[in-house]
Amino acid sequence: MERKQEVSKAVIQRMPRYYRNICDLKTEGVQRISSRALAERMGLTASQIRQDFNCFGGFGQQGYGYNVDKLLEELGAILGLQAGRTAILIGAGNLGRALLNNFDFASSGFRLLCAFDAGTELVGKKFGGHEVRDSAGLFEYVSRRKPDVAVLTLPRDYAPGVARDLVDHGIKGLWNFTGADLHLEGLGVPVENVHLSDSLMTLCHLVEQREE
Amino acid sequence: MERKQEVSKAVIQRMPRYYRNICDLKTEGVQRISSRALAERMGLTASQIRQDFNCFGGFGQQGYGYNVDKLLEELGAILGLQAGRTAILIGAGNLGRALLNNFDFASSGFRLLCAFDAGTELVGKKFGGHEVRDSAGLFEYVSRRKPDVAVLTLPRDYAPGVARDLVDHGIKGLWNFTGADLHLEGLGVPVENVHLSDSLMTLCHLVEQREE
Repeated sequence: MERKQEVSKAVIQRMPRYYRNICDLKTEGVQRISSRALAERMGLTASQIRQDFNCFGGFGQQGYGYNVDKLLEELGAILGLQAGRTAILIGAGNLGRALLNNFDFASSGFRLLCAFDAGTELVGKKFGGHEVRDSAGLFEYVSRRKPDVAVLTLPRDYAPGVARDLVDHGIKGLWNFTGADLHLEGLGVPVENVHLSDSLMTLCHLVEQREE
Repeated sequence: MERKQEVSKAVIQRMPRYYRNICDLKTEGVQRISSRALAERMGLTASQIRQDFNCFGGFGQQGYGYNVDKLLEELGAILGLQAGRTAILIGAGNLGRALLNNFDFASSGFRLLCAFDAGTELVGKKFGGHEVRDSAGLFEYVSRRKPDVAVLTLPRDYAPGVARDLVDHGIKGLWNFTGADLHLEGLGVPVENVHLSDSLMTLCHLVEQREE
């Protein structure tokens, strides 16, 4: 895999969607797919797909389509899913526990090491096989075990301070569910913000529009 | 508020982000903000913001900035947040319960009526004040109470069938957490898909890239 050029953020954000769709194709037993068939499935155009894949050197053979196994491997490599990254989760409230119990971190390239919570009644309990540790030991743990990323499911007001301290202790990326703006600009630490309300407001608008 | 032209999906998807940031400004006690200051805060350009707002007739006065209260009202109207929409949630597993207990539906324009689950041990219980009903009565309820949208937090394999039946019974929009492709193209029913794994894979890629 050779990267031909600086790849735009829009292309990068489509990569997980390609990966997810190709995973589904594999599950369905499909071994080969044309850019046209993939485009139809994903609601894109074939030329868009070829352009996106060309950013990474292209993975197909003209007129022959894409090999599903090979494509999955290439996309996985681009996304860095085989790099053996590790994660910790901070805040074992309802959302934190929903992720601990149900979310498949491994499929997104991460091994979840453990969770942290400030509530003593949760410390020592396990959710989805992941132990909850006392948040008093958080930064010592991060310095020692060097997890790559932290999942932030703690209360919003604590998030900016904790995020900054995590980065100071070596965290390389943040998956932020708190809704807080983390102000880490310039530190070179990627933050993926999950704003569920944005998605629901968009739906509200679309329902409204449909009735106009 | 007068809509000047057909508004692109990209603009629409930025509207909730504007709304969220203006809400925060109001909470911080800010009464007026320039497009430049708002742009800086949101990591956009001032001209982008003016362009976006102009799609809806613009809300500012040249050289005077935006009135925060008025902007909030206008954005809320565009998003349809005051239309009194209703929602039901289907599937009261961990993720469903996390939403029932913690998610502020009202801030995104919806009153959550109740939840449904197939597990008899949950039926009759309340989470975040929302009752869980037996999913055996789901479609009768939808026909009778006419909720606007359904939040899908049920197991993935059931989602496409249930979604189709919901639409047949009058549901106008779906907030889909199941990861399933709902195949509702052509029915004119908006679907907002929440793919948490896409966001985590993007983070994985960004962490990888940073180390290259």
